[in-house]
This record gives sequence, C-alpha cells and structure tokens, in this order.
Amino acid sequence: MDKLHVIKIGGNIIDNPGLLDQFLDEFTQIPSPKILVHGGGKLATKMASKLDIPTQMVEGRRITDAAMLDVVTMIYGGLINKKIVAGLQKRGCNALGLTGADAQTITATKRPVKTIDYGFVGDIVEVNTPIIYQFLRMGITPIFAPLTADRDGNMLNTNADTQASALATALSKELPTSLYYSFEKAGVLQNAQDDNSVISQITPAFYAELKEKKVITDGMIPKLDNAFTAIQNGVENVWIGQASSLLSFLNGQETGTLLSI
Amino acid sequence: MDKLHVIKIGGNIIDNPGLLDQFLDEFTQIPSPKILVHGGGKLATKMASKLDIPTQMVEGRRITDAAMLDVVTMIYGGLINKKIVAGLQKRGCNALGLTGADAQTITATKRPVKTIDYGFVGDIVEVNTPIIYQFLRMGITPIFAPLTADRDGNMLNTNADTQASALATALSKELPTSLYYSFEKAGVLQNAQDDNSVISQITPAFYAELKEKKVITDGMIPKLDNAFTAIQNGVENVWIGQASSLLSFLNGQETGTLLSI
Repeated sequence: MDKLHVIKIGGNIIDNPGLLDQFLDEFTQIPSPKILVHGGGKLATKMASKLDIPTQMVEGRRITDAAMLDVVTMIYGGLINKKIVAGLQKRGCNALGLTGADAQTITATKRPVKTIDYGFVGDIVEVNTPIIYQFLRMGITPIFAPLTADRDGNMLNTNADTQASALATALSKELPTSLYYSFEKAGVLQNAQDDNSVISQITPAFYAELKEKKVITDGMIPKLDNAFTAIQNGVENVWIGQASSLLSFLNGQETGTLLSI
Repeated sequence: MDKLHVIKIGGNIIDNPGLLDQFLDEFTQIPSPKILVHGGGKLATKMASKLDIPTQMVEGRRITDAAMLDVVTMIYGGLINKKIVAGLQKRGCNALGLTGADAQTITATKRPVKTIDYGFVGDIVEVNTPIIYQFLRMGITPIFAPLTADRDGNMLNTNADTQASALATALSKELPTSLYYSFEKAGVLQNAQDDNSVISQITPAFYAELKEKKVITDGMIPKLDNAFTAIQNGVENVWIGQASSLLSFLNGQETGTLLSI
C-alpha cells in the first residue's frame, strides 16, 4: 500500500443531501487506501427533540446520557453510516461501516467526570491498527461513525475530529498518512470576514505567530492544536478546507490550508 | 476452518435485556466460525409510533416506505446491532456488525410489486462469500442486521430468517454449515398447546406426513419449507429451538427440533 488518506466530514456535508452526493462522487475518486470519518450533523438533535429527549451542549460538546446515547447510536451508527456506505457501494467504492466496537477497531474509556459530566462520551485509548491495515489491504474502505466502545460493552459518543486524528496518528506508524478536515470555510482565514483570505500553509512557527497576533482565535485553536499534535506524532500533514476542494487539492491545485512541519 | 454455525435470533430475545445477556454469554461459548443474524423485534414499531409513522403489516411482513426504512436502518443497523456487537466484544468475541451494504456482503433487489407493494424490502440475489470467508478466517464473528442494499445505493429491509438461510446456503459451498433458528417455543410441536410435545427430528418424508395430518400448519409451513430448501441446497441441518437450549444442543443434548435429510 502506498499512502493513506484519512478524511473527516462534518455536519455541513451530512445535513445537505446534494453536498453529500457530490462528496461521495469525489471521495470515490480519491486513491485507496482511504478512510472516512463522519460527524453527526443536526439529525441527532432533531431526533432527540422529536423523542422529547433534551439536548444539552457544553462548549460545543453534547452531554450524552443513556437516552441520548441510544439516539446517537441509531443516527450516527445506523442511519448516517449506512446511507454513506450504500451510497459508496453504488459508486463502486467497497465501503465498510464501523464504530469503534466493530472488530474492536477503537477502544475508548468513558470520560472521567471533572467539573462537567459529559456522560457516555469516549476518550480514545487504543486504535487496533493490525485489523484496520488488514481491511485496507483487502481493498475495503472503512467508514467510521463517531462512536467507540469501552471494554465493558458500552457504546460511547466520540468527537469525530478527535477520532480522525487518533486513527491517522496510529496508522501513520506503518503507512505514510495524511489527514483531511472538511470545513465550512475555504480554509484557515487571515481575516474571518473574508473568505478569500485563506492562508495556504502553516508551520508550527507560523502558527505560534498567528496565535500571538490573534489572527487565529477561539474555536480554531483546539482544531489546529489537535492537527499539529497529529503531525508531531507521525502524520505527514493535515489539510483543512472545503470538501468540494479536496479532490482539486489532491490533484495538485493550491486550495485550502496545509499544515506541516 | 472447521464447521460454520449460522444462528438467527428474533424479537423474543432482542426485546428482553435479560434473555439477550444470557444469549450473548452462551453465543460467546459456541465455537468459531460463527455468524449471528438478528431480527428487529418490537423496537422499530415502537420508534415509528413515537415518530408518528404508521406501521402497516401484511401477513406478518412490514410495509417499508421511505420513512419506515429510515426507522429500521436506525434501529436494526444502529441501535440493536451495536448493542449486540459491544456486548459480544465485552465477552471477548470479536464481533463485526454488518448490513448487506457493508463490504457488499449481501446484494438484494427491491421486491417487485405484484398484488402488494412492500416498499423498500429486499429479495436477496447474491451473498459475497469470499469476503465473508475472509472475515471468518480473520477470527471475526459477523453480526448481521436484517438489512441489505441494492446496487443503486438503497438500503432494503430484509427478513432475518431468509437472510440467515441465504447466508448459510451460500457459505455451505466451502464450509460444512448448520443453521439454527431460535424460536419462542422449545421446537416444532406435535401439539401446539403442549410445550412438552417437541418433535426431535424431522426428515422431508416425515415433514410431508406431518403436513398431510395437519400437525404442522400455517406460519410454521413457510419456516420449515425455507429450512428444507436450505438443506436441499447444501446446509447440513437446521435446528429450531429455544435460544437458551442451543448450547446444550451443541454439547450433545437432545433438545429442540433437528431437520435433516
């Protein structure tokens, strides 16, 4: 196997059938081996509300009680995952839907309660790289829902960005690996108000400068910290940009933001 | 690999957490290779009713419109399947949840409309035996939800009995295969009112006799027809009995009903 592409898509693609179709067309064209990690989008919140299960968010993270765990297991692991898998099979991509529980691909522990009890939320402790390499060698494209499991049989709601980064980092030990975050914006912006101000490359030194000058603030900081951690731990580079630009980027066009050492 | 066990469990186990736990304990002890096919139970109907989606049944089969397809994809492919997978992983059984769409394990076509339009219901056309053998050789235990997909990217609701029988028949080409249907009753009964009247063995000739004498009637006929078809097409034998007796049967005890040529 050549080079592994780990791609994460979020709610803006999943919640929009037209964008999802377009993405699946393009994803199919990305050379294998490749892995997709999908987020959850708004469907779980909508379903919870129909079922009168209150949605509680703390700093953008969902509090997952037992009732909400059932909802995300249904929606992420069932509805969204199987829609993507069937859509890729139709296009000739041999997709296999997975949660961390399946073939024990990703083991997590329930997040310990400090100031906030996030409930059934997973912190990843181990990626089962041998079995994932084997799936990839079989020509299978793993499609991960943002769900893991602990060793006690509990499913755990897991952040898709973190899951993509943990997969890419672990798998980079034996395969050159790049990580791609699909994003609503065209990339990391010099000026948050100007979609044309994409910063095309960021190194750790430049990142430090951008943070100091407050060009990069708030929600972007954990995302980029997470990306640079992946790079420091073996991932070749991390790309952040619009899903619709990913194929152009892979074909050599300069688009989105590339993070590398 | 030695001998393959294909086991189907239905609603009476899935809807009862205590029985399900006991079944998973015992399923873990069955020697590999093995495959589990689970039905849907009452959860999909309950969920549909909460979501104000009407449930329509014709002769015990669910009419699956687009809204109901989403419900069964969530419940069968998400909630039930992942609960079983995580529960088996906890017990040390390397379970992998699958629908027919995943790794294109089972291809189906939407059932043609004759007198009744069943909607998104699948008739199985192909079992991808090479990939399933490969999973089994990897020490993986496939856990199938009663869902398949066509080649156009549609998930399809599929009868779990039929799915188990199609899997067992196809896989029997290279592996000696037995099929086990878990059932509410202790087996096929001589007298429907008497749980102690289990018929321990049925051959095709005896089956013809039992039908002629109206000992076997109604709903049992398609089940047994289906079982004998599997046997005529390569499955060694089919066992029908209570899930809680399966392990005893495999350990040599006479329990349930064994169908064979």
